[in-house]
Amino acid sequence: MKKEGSKEGKRVKILTDKQEFEGILIKSYDIKIVLLKLSSGYNIGIEKAKIKKIQVLEKKKKEEFKPKLIKPKAGLPGIAIIVTGGTIASRLDYETGGVKALTKPEEIIAVAPKIQEIAKITTIEIPFTVMSEDITSEKWKKLAKLCERLLNKKENKGLIILHGTDTLHYTAAILSFMLQDLNKPVVLTYAQRSIDRGSSDSLLNLTCSAHAALSDIAEVMLIGHATTNDNFCFALRGTKVRKMHTSRRDTFRPINTKPIATIHEDGKIEKYSEYRKRNVGKVKANLVFDDRVSLIKFHPNSSSKIIDFYRKQGYKGLVIEATGLGHVSTEGKKSWLEAIKRAVKSGMIVCFAPQCLYGSLNPFVYSALRKLYDSGVLFLKDMLPETAYVKLGFLLGKERNKERVKELMLKNLVGEYNPRLTFGDFLV
Amino acid sequence: MKKEGSKEGKRVKILTDKQEFEGILIKSYDIKIVLLKLSSGYNIGIEKAKIKKIQVLEKKKKEEFKPKLIKPKAGLPGIAIIVTGGTIASRLDYETGGVKALTKPEEIIAVAPKIQEIAKITTIEIPFTVMSEDITSEKWKKLAKLCERLLNKKENKGLIILHGTDTLHYTAAILSFMLQDLNKPVVLTYAQRSIDRGSSDSLLNLTCSAHAALSDIAEVMLIGHATTNDNFCFALRGTKVRKMHTSRRDTFRPINTKPIATIHEDGKIEKYSEYRKRNVGKVKANLVFDDRVSLIKFHPNSSSKIIDFYRKQGYKGLVIEATGLGHVSTEGKKSWLEAIKRAVKSGMIVCFAPQCLYGSLNPFVYSALRKLYDSGVLFLKDMLPETAYVKLGFLLGKERNKERVKELMLKNLVGEYNPRLTFGDFLV
Repeated sequence: MKKEGSKEGKRVKILTDKQEFEGILIKSYDIKIVLLKLSSGYNIGIEKAKIKKIQVLEKKKKEEFKPKLIKPKAGLPGIAIIVTGGTIASRLDYETGGVKALTKPEEIIAVAPKIQEIAKITTIEIPFTVMSEDITSEKWKKLAKLCERLLNKKENKGLIILHGTDTLHYTAAILSFMLQDLNKPVVLTYAQRSIDRGSSDSLLNLTCSAHAALSDIAEVMLIGHATTNDNFCFALRGTKVRKMHTSRRDTFRPINTKPIATIHEDGKIEKYSEYRKRNVGKVKANLVFDDRVSLIKFHPNSSSKIIDFYRKQGYKGLVIEATGLGHVSTEGKKSWLEAIKRAVKSGMIVCFAPQCLYGSLNPFVYSALRKLYDSGVLFLKDMLPETAYVKLGFLLGKERNKERVKELMLKNLVGEYNPRLTFGDFLV
Repeated sequence: MKKEGSKEGKRVKILTDKQEFEGILIKSYDIKIVLLKLSSGYNIGIEKAKIKKIQVLEKKKKEEFKPKLIKPKAGLPGIAIIVTGGTIASRLDYETGGVKALTKPEEIIAVAPKIQEIAKITTIEIPFTVMSEDITSEKWKKLAKLCERLLNKKENKGLIILHGTDTLHYTAAILSFMLQDLNKPVVLTYAQRSIDRGSSDSLLNLTCSAHAALSDIAEVMLIGHATTNDNFCFALRGTKVRKMHTSRRDTFRPINTKPIATIHEDGKIEKYSEYRKRNVGKVKANLVFDDRVSLIKFHPNSSSKIIDFYRKQGYKGLVIEATGLGHVSTEGKKSWLEAIKRAVKSGMIVCFAPQCLYGSLNPFVYSALRKLYDSGVLFLKDMLPETAYVKLGFLLGKERNKERVKELMLKNLVGEYNPRLTFGDFLV
């Protein structure tokens, strides 16, 4: 067989002894496999040994993507949309097999045209376009500032933010802190599969997001598939949610809490926990974050030098994912206790969050935990490590007084602690 | 009220306006609260403001813990027990309110006397007693060596290891690698609540462990409560299990796989996946581990200097918990790409494992992932980060040839990859 490097990006028909495939050749990293992007959006690998013929097809007439704008109904309530990137705001480019960002309003609305039967889209703003793993504190501030402006406009009843999935829960958490005392719903949503694919989750997620944005829940919440079915979404509190699966559409799970609500395609909302209500106040975003904070994971046999490293780098805060009820090694050559004491003594704020993710830390069970507690470590009970990281960065940016930061770390500001945590809140 | 510091460890009766409590005073970290250990083993906090009287009681006549040894039935198959510490091998000391390690054979057997109706305990060995967060590679080697010796004795049909819960899944994973080509079952078990408590899980876990140790499953497996009920346990593959809740008894969950089996109290075993069968071979433990390996977590807005730090420290391997399908930042000022390239160039082996925990990495979906793949990062598909850490330490200890280490990291040695991973393997 010929080298297909030169054919990448071309439309081909591949014949094997048993089947025929049509699609776009894309780069394969296995020399024994030819990789084809099918029109369904899925990639398929075909063993070279089984290929009888590869036929390059005529270049398809470039089908330009021209979504039709439905004329919005009159008298509908207004929603503003912010686009930050991610799969929900992109579609396949069939010429290259790659992914293309959607930037025009009509393209965004075309992801879920039904949204125009629910609300009037007052504006679509794109503060930046970023793969979510590249998001930074600067972008978080920019986003929060834009939220503030849009939330304080009378014409908007709520706000929807389109965002990549990978770090969506970090963004949901930091917005929860930056936009305290909310007046209207701030809804973050996503897609795990782009709109070109039959199994895309964009349509349901965006439809339910519109219902959530018009609801009376004035919280930062993440809206997405509750199950693998296309029938309803969860509304999840921004500080108590985590991406738990690399590819499932119902990847976002509530951790140590119940969903705020389930939201159905037809607009029915069932509520499961208390929430902050919509109000007439103005929102004031707190655009602060101290980057000298890190999140690290304790594991057995690990060196405590990592703590000294951050201390010497001038870090002001550290969140450590501790095992079980809040353990790191405190005995023997691999003990972390001494390095933690040095860090606390130097003025660093050292916090523990649960590596288990589910359940709560409790420093009062074992004597080893009391040693850590006595050394000044803050035990963040049932707070997620990711939420703890953004909260600590936020508070260190906001407060000069370290004792005040410690006090606020342990205080429930925006639902990051669940005071009514029950055993049932596990693997929902 | 008087200072109760002096009364710590004393039996007292506390009267409030409404109730009466009896128990042992233990140290309280909240000056407004008096902490009492009840005879049920639970701690209760009583608000000082509500206390009317604290009466110090007579010292109870020291009840010495003298478990009775049941005479084992004749003709039962043999099991060896290894005790490494943890809650399952300890009981409350009612004099101090603290926890005391069990070290005598009759004390261990008394945790689940029923075990002597199932098997003959040939020996109880205590290589070390450690809080599981303090375990190190030296202790892992010591433990594996002891396993080898006991597994190669004809009188033992299987092996049970009692271990603390916090890092039990790390130990289960490293034993899976050190004890490849097993001949008999190696069962790790635990308790989340000590035997003194009504809700202790010791009895069911140890009973099911005995059944598992006599089964035909020649794998390193973790046995523990499948649900919150006391009726059956899961047998979980040592490389695909994680502690997922800080305090629940069914804390250990299979990740990206099904349980090998369910094991009932009466000995009934239902199997759910393929496994290695018991055989007549001898076991050879591979007592190797390179400590110059670490496990770190990528998070947005994080500094890549952490990678340079490990490189400069002479580390040979790094497992990074990447987001989603295998992302870390590759664009802008906070990009990790350049530091990763420097690490790979210096000879470090850099691996990605899923921060989501559930699901598999896939470097062929996004162009940013291809950049990372091209830089030499190994994408460990559905392998757990904790398992990846011990596997990399093990292989770097075992092999001199780096290319061979990389090859073996990507190869399924002892079930650490699930070649038949399905969407259903989520939050079981």
